[in-house]
Amino acid sequence: MNEQTFLKELKEIDLLRQAMGILEWDNQTGMPEAASEYRSEVDSYLYGLYFEKKIGAPIKEAIEYFGTHPEELSEVGQAAYTLVKEEYELQKDVPQSLAIEASAATSRAHTAWLKARKEKDFGLFKEALSENIRLTKEMIPYMKKNELTDYDVLLNQYEPNMTVEILDNVFSQVRDGIMDIRRQLAEKGTAPATTILSRKMTEAQQRTFISKVITDLGYDFNRGRLDNTVHPFATGINHNDVRLTTRWNEHDFSMGLFGVIHEAGHGMYEQNIDEKYQGTPVHEGASMGIHESQSLFNEIIIGSNRAFWQKQFPFFQACAEGTFDDVSFDEFYDSLKHSQASLIRIEADSLTYVLHIIIRYEIEKMIFNDQVAVEDLPQIWNDKYEEYLGVRPENDLEGILQDVHWSGASFGYFPSYALGYMYAAQLLQAMQKDVAVDDVLASDDYSPIRLWLTEHIHQFGASKKPNELILDATGELLNPQYLLDYLRKIYFAVYKIND
Amino acid sequence: MNEQTFLKELKEIDLLRQAMGILEWDNQTGMPEAASEYRSEVDSYLYGLYFEKKIGAPIKEAIEYFGTHPEELSEVGQAAYTLVKEEYELQKDVPQSLAIEASAATSRAHTAWLKARKEKDFGLFKEALSENIRLTKEMIPYMKKNELTDYDVLLNQYEPNMTVEILDNVFSQVRDGIMDIRRQLAEKGTAPATTILSRKMTEAQQRTFISKVITDLGYDFNRGRLDNTVHPFATGINHNDVRLTTRWNEHDFSMGLFGVIHEAGHGMYEQNIDEKYQGTPVHEGASMGIHESQSLFNEIIIGSNRAFWQKQFPFFQACAEGTFDDVSFDEFYDSLKHSQASLIRIEADSLTYVLHIIIRYEIEKMIFNDQVAVEDLPQIWNDKYEEYLGVRPENDLEGILQDVHWSGASFGYFPSYALGYMYAAQLLQAMQKDVAVDDVLASDDYSPIRLWLTEHIHQFGASKKPNELILDATGELLNPQYLLDYLRKIYFAVYKIND
Repeated sequence: MNEQTFLKELKEIDLLRQAMGILEWDNQTGMPEAASEYRSEVDSYLYGLYFEKKIGAPIKEAIEYFGTHPEELSEVGQAAYTLVKEEYELQKDVPQSLAIEASAATSRAHTAWLKARKEKDFGLFKEALSENIRLTKEMIPYMKKNELTDYDVLLNQYEPNMTVEILDNVFSQVRDGIMDIRRQLAEKGTAPATTILSRKMTEAQQRTFISKVITDLGYDFNRGRLDNTVHPFATGINHNDVRLTTRWNEHDFSMGLFGVIHEAGHGMYEQNIDEKYQGTPVHEGASMGIHESQSLFNEIIIGSNRAFWQKQFPFFQACAEGTFDDVSFDEFYDSLKHSQASLIRIEADSLTYVLHIIIRYEIEKMIFNDQVAVEDLPQIWNDKYEEYLGVRPENDLEGILQDVHWSGASFGYFPSYALGYMYAAQLLQAMQKDVAVDDVLASDDYSPIRLWLTEHIHQFGASKKPNELILDATGELLNPQYLLDYLRKIYFAVYKIND
Repeated sequence: MNEQTFLKELKEIDLLRQAMGILEWDNQTGMPEAASEYRSEVDSYLYGLYFEKKIGAPIKEAIEYFGTHPEELSEVGQAAYTLVKEEYELQKDVPQSLAIEASAATSRAHTAWLKARKEKDFGLFKEALSENIRLTKEMIPYMKKNELTDYDVLLNQYEPNMTVEILDNVFSQVRDGIMDIRRQLAEKGTAPATTILSRKMTEAQQRTFISKVITDLGYDFNRGRLDNTVHPFATGINHNDVRLTTRWNEHDFSMGLFGVIHEAGHGMYEQNIDEKYQGTPVHEGASMGIHESQSLFNEIIIGSNRAFWQKQFPFFQACAEGTFDDVSFDEFYDSLKHSQASLIRIEADSLTYVLHIIIRYEIEKMIFNDQVAVEDLPQIWNDKYEEYLGVRPENDLEGILQDVHWSGASFGYFPSYALGYMYAAQLLQAMQKDVAVDDVLASDDYSPIRLWLTEHIHQFGASKKPNELILDATGELLNPQYLLDYLRKIYFAVYKIND
């Protein structure tokens, strides 16, 4: 075994991943409807080749050999080795029969979930969910390394080194902080009007506007593209091919607008990972939470910035070809930042969003660290919505059945979304020491912001862990106070509250 | 070895082909420009897997085993076996070193061809072309089975069972016939005006019109799609995923219009091959010539039909939103069928097109059956254009350098285009015995035409040879008189000549 052989094997694994990436992108953006059955045969076959190589003899040999000969690896080889070994260690002890059983259970659970949604009845999903939980609980002991609790094991699949101990602290602080801001908005604030948000803007008009905006922000269309889809996503095929997707609503321009800004944040991350990592698992985001911090930096930090919108508003008006000519800038900006509690996570505004995540986190923790009867979950869900957000679902579709994650046994994933919020605000705080962010966003050249993010986050890909990235970039570990301060500042201004 | 194992192996080969098909489609329709280098790595890797399987042990074993146990194969297995064996036999004797040398030579020739085009100088392509010819000549003896001449071997790569003996006869008849029609048009005819052809029609307007037309003709958008590209093509990914591409010119609507009708003919063929052949090499066209007969049936037979256009013209006017409201139907139709000799094959009209092919055929035959100095080819080319078409290239770019085929050593390919013309006219003649084609094209329901083509051509895929298909469908072997009669009728009517 030598490094060249190891990297060649990783390269071939990556070439299969790239092919699957294009097929999946095609599947989501415009594959003929009738083609899905034949396509799934291609997908399965390629995935089989990919999986076989990932656990194949050369990889096993490399893990063993370089464990005792780390000095023979370059920096890139070492970074790749670390990730490959971690993934291998996570899975190597799980009995194959159990992994297969768990995978089959998620297929069944997905079908049950779709059916339960149709009937708005959690009862139809209950058994399949119980099975997903049972099998996940069975797998945890095989995956556990140094984690304190079972739920920590699940968290670390998506956010390495994150713990329940940390999250309990930050989430209780964030929850109390947001609920306090909401109380003050309700008591002392004046909610902005939102009627202009439903004025008609054609898809073409929206596309012209947003394409220019994300280009200004640093998304490179020579190495990407923007397509229409049902469930928006960004996908990094390779260093020079990072694609965005979106959906549009001609009577709610804010959907496509913030959607594309969000996905462009993911895209800018993938486009700016150091190219030397291409062809290895290091050429991807450090974690779900860090990836989300980049999309949310665009969507929530830049997308809430008054100077940014002041600069963009005349171009927005021009793209809308008259529709917003009678609207003042203040009216426009304030309407974008109104806040209203909703039942549905993906429709939540930037103030209430994190509360949706905290509810899921608390429930997942109950499931895996404590004892809770699955049949009681809808009641718990609904009570928490009432307590934290002041709204109560009328049925399970508006409640516990709204998200796909649990049908796929993706327990431990939700916190990433909230971590992205907190990281983004903390990064802004650090960036402001080097960059006059408001001035930059009022200018014609946004590049100092993108360059700062590339220097401190993007370039490293997965070669650093999330906590290491945040510490190095901001000088401290995760601190949720920056998010609270930021939300307070933005919403108090829009709601005309003098702090 | 049993049939199931054989078909499973073919299926896996086909799944890789499908993946490569999507990647190639993506490459041609909108892959980010900067991604081409990384993409070619993926392409090479998948092609390697595909090629290894095609000549792998299971296939070799199947060829041997079923050679002595044909009775163990179903009809589908037998049809697949025949094709696999033929391809294997064609390549098995070619020394690997020669095949590799030939492949490398085409890469160099492509580069030389691009450079020669830039300089409009055949001299820069001469050596590389000579090398392609030399290596092809060296390969022919290894590929030869029962063919009489060397050029027959090349022909049969694209059109099984076609011979120089047949082509010499039909091409001299077609050449004389078309030249005679052209003489009469020049002497006695009145050329239609063509100024309306350059009126502006937006891409969106053209797309609306042509999408409806090809849907009426039988192309199924639920199993396909239409995208923009530089060099239009159709691609059959699988039975339920057959994609078309086109380019548009807002000041020449006929380009996109006939382009899409043409590609839809290819698409309708692939969509209507019997699904039982899916996953085997039988699920494709019988030959290049037969495939072209289907695209040209759409483009030339239906696209020249007066009743068809009379029916479509009001919708065309509506799609153009006023631009053609002052144009009479006769003016419109006649302008579509004007004829003018051109230097460039892909710009030729339906009357002169075949002469371009005959010139290439005659030159290729000289190269492979007789002796000709490569340096004399431009002179020969130019003389033939002057003799057959009355136009003479001013430089090599307008002449011998215009087509890519010879740089890829695709000798023997060109005749397919002309065969498609002749087959299409012969199929029309036969179809008219069962279907009142003009009446159908004047009606709201074109399905009898598509159904006839599916019954007699499409469904069989590659399970029948081209000559067998044409004989069974029309009751006779290739007969070029139908094309001549058809062209005479169409053009004499447009040029107001009483026959």
